[in-house]
Amino acid sequence: MSRNENTEEQLKNFVNTIYEAIKNEDIPEIKIKSRTRDNIVLDALYGVWKYGDQEVRRTARKIDGAEFIAKSLYTINFILDMLKESKSSTLREMYYISEGWKDYKFATQDESNVLAEDMEVMTELMREDFHLRPEENGASIIGDITIEEKNRKNEFKRINCRDDVGDAGYNIPYNVEEEKVRLISHDADMIVALETGGMFDRLVENKFDEDFRAILVHLKGQPARSTRRMLKRMNEEMGLPVYIFTDGDPWSFRIYASVAYGAIKTAHISHWLAVPTAEFVGISASDILNYDLPTDKLNDKDISALNSELQDPRFQNEFWKSEIETMLKINQKAEQQALAKYGLNFVTDTYLPEKLNLKR
Amino acid sequence: MSRNENTEEQLKNFVNTIYEAIKNEDIPEIKIKSRTRDNIVLDALYGVWKYGDQEVRRTARKIDGAEFIAKSLYTINFILDMLKESKSSTLREMYYISEGWKDYKFATQDESNVLAEDMEVMTELMREDFHLRPEENGASIIGDITIEEKNRKNEFKRINCRDDVGDAGYNIPYNVEEEKVRLISHDADMIVALETGGMFDRLVENKFDEDFRAILVHLKGQPARSTRRMLKRMNEEMGLPVYIFTDGDPWSFRIYASVAYGAIKTAHISHWLAVPTAEFVGISASDILNYDLPTDKLNDKDISALNSELQDPRFQNEFWKSEIETMLKINQKAEQQALAKYGLNFVTDTYLPEKLNLKR
Repeated sequence: MSRNENTEEQLKNFVNTIYEAIKNEDIPEIKIKSRTRDNIVLDALYGVWKYGDQEVRRTARKIDGAEFIAKSLYTINFILDMLKESKSSTLREMYYISEGWKDYKFATQDESNVLAEDMEVMTELMREDFHLRPEENGASIIGDITIEEKNRKNEFKRINCRDDVGDAGYNIPYNVEEEKVRLISHDADMIVALETGGMFDRLVENKFDEDFRAILVHLKGQPARSTRRMLKRMNEEMGLPVYIFTDGDPWSFRIYASVAYGAIKTAHISHWLAVPTAEFVGISASDILNYDLPTDKLNDKDISALNSELQDPRFQNEFWKSEIETMLKINQKAEQQALAKYGLNFVTDTYLPEKLNLKR
Repeated sequence: MSRNENTEEQLKNFVNTIYEAIKNEDIPEIKIKSRTRDNIVLDALYGVWKYGDQEVRRTARKIDGAEFIAKSLYTINFILDMLKESKSSTLREMYYISEGWKDYKFATQDESNVLAEDMEVMTELMREDFHLRPEENGASIIGDITIEEKNRKNEFKRINCRDDVGDAGYNIPYNVEEEKVRLISHDADMIVALETGGMFDRLVENKFDEDFRAILVHLKGQPARSTRRMLKRMNEEMGLPVYIFTDGDPWSFRIYASVAYGAIKTAHISHWLAVPTAEFVGISASDILNYDLPTDKLNDKDISALNSELQDPRFQNEFWKSEIETMLKINQKAEQQALAKYGLNFVTDTYLPEKLNLKR
């Protein structure tokens, strides 16, 4: 059975459950795992954080539950149409498409985004199976790795992410599964993933990738799913260790957590996206002190994010507790580019080799 | 004389002027063209908006003027170092580098960004000459155009932006001048530049580029300089007409204006960046009415931006006055993806062919 056929079958099964309930004069209801921080648990098999057993029940006994079920059915209808016509759509397009669903159109873009995720949890399929795309694509890769990407003529095109691309690198497409992107070969020792474009360009210009046999991945802030999935595949299929180099602030800690442990919103597919062995080599509170970096004061949002992280099950270990508490105490954060205080080569000559125990 | 040598000479001349003034016991001062909306005038030769004759004087007689001159000199010193070492840096790195300039370090990132632009105006050079980069790169291109980009080994690598790239297209690097990017050949009738990634992907999926012989350029919102420069070069060197397809709101009107007429902040290089023949095919206030599109209400910022555009010399023509006034009257704006109300093919089957007078 092809991936599309499997998706079609799963979705039709879902519709059938609702149909059968109505036919039997039962009130249709759907149970979905609760997607909150309180309901994530460590998956011992994969070492990533997944949803626990708490469930939310949406029943047609109530108006909002009935609306939720109706919107799900319209959404499935739209997805089945796309599968038939080999189309895909952005989440925003789906929101506008729902204009035609009259009383059941989405009130906000956020509602349709959340429903797309709920559909994943309900069917155990992935957004990519539904042919739904985010607005922006993943980030970019530079380094000696060769991949094949299927183009619109359905031919696989071979691309070396060092030799066959421009300075800006290889753009990660929204679907990086085997049927779209094949990992062919590499000549590297590790992956270094960077939060900002400025730092990505700095490592490229300083030839860090060549000197230290690294594959550089630009995360573009909180990384898109396809970027995380690509990291996961390179880690798993090619055995490359992953290092995450971010700014030093609570939002960057979350970037690391979503790559290494899984994100709260997508915990149903953590085993698919997360790299539990990924190491944090970003700016820590200790680095701010040890390297005497230029900093900004924490603002109210930063402080509340840090306090929230102290409650987050993903951050319950010595390293993170101590770093978060230190950051709250010194009341300062720093960007990764703050290392430029010591010149443009400091990050590649000193900071990263120290963090990674590298010898040139 | 190479481009680097020319930059070095210009910068040293600038330093010399200051030095001579001090030696002659004059008080150093710098005159810079005023970079405000009140001081942009239509350049008859190029058909773009440039700075007029109003000048701002920075004199060392005052503390802030003296600081401005001192910071300029430190900046020039940093740039000359980069030229010598074949390095480049992001604007943010320069901000952090200034930590070492003691009393003359930049107070904010904004201050260093503005100074980099002022330096361009003062020296008539470009940021790229200074080896200063923005944080993020330009956007991407898909279509049948072949370019050559110089790689880190100083070899020109040939890339066809349809056949040799993945689905996400060719990434425009930050420097697209002849010494870095060569335009080789194309097989297309026009360029369609898109504001959002979602619409870019829609046109790619619907094969608009193939069916209508178009080169698609993703602007990524307000386009980076390198994106505008690339549009300018493709327009000028290859004779390709440029169409700008944006959302229908005041910010998108500004995107069009910056591509077609020149942006206010970079009016000193409008002749280098702007495509005066570029046509607007974005969502207009009339489209909102004619196509009965899903809309959002204007917020306070939208309204004040529209009112400001009514005063903007670049928007003083019948089309824009009428569109801006209509938008204020109906009090609504719409996104380009709102066309999905009529299905995923409406934009390529109906909207764009109507706007562009195309026959399939």
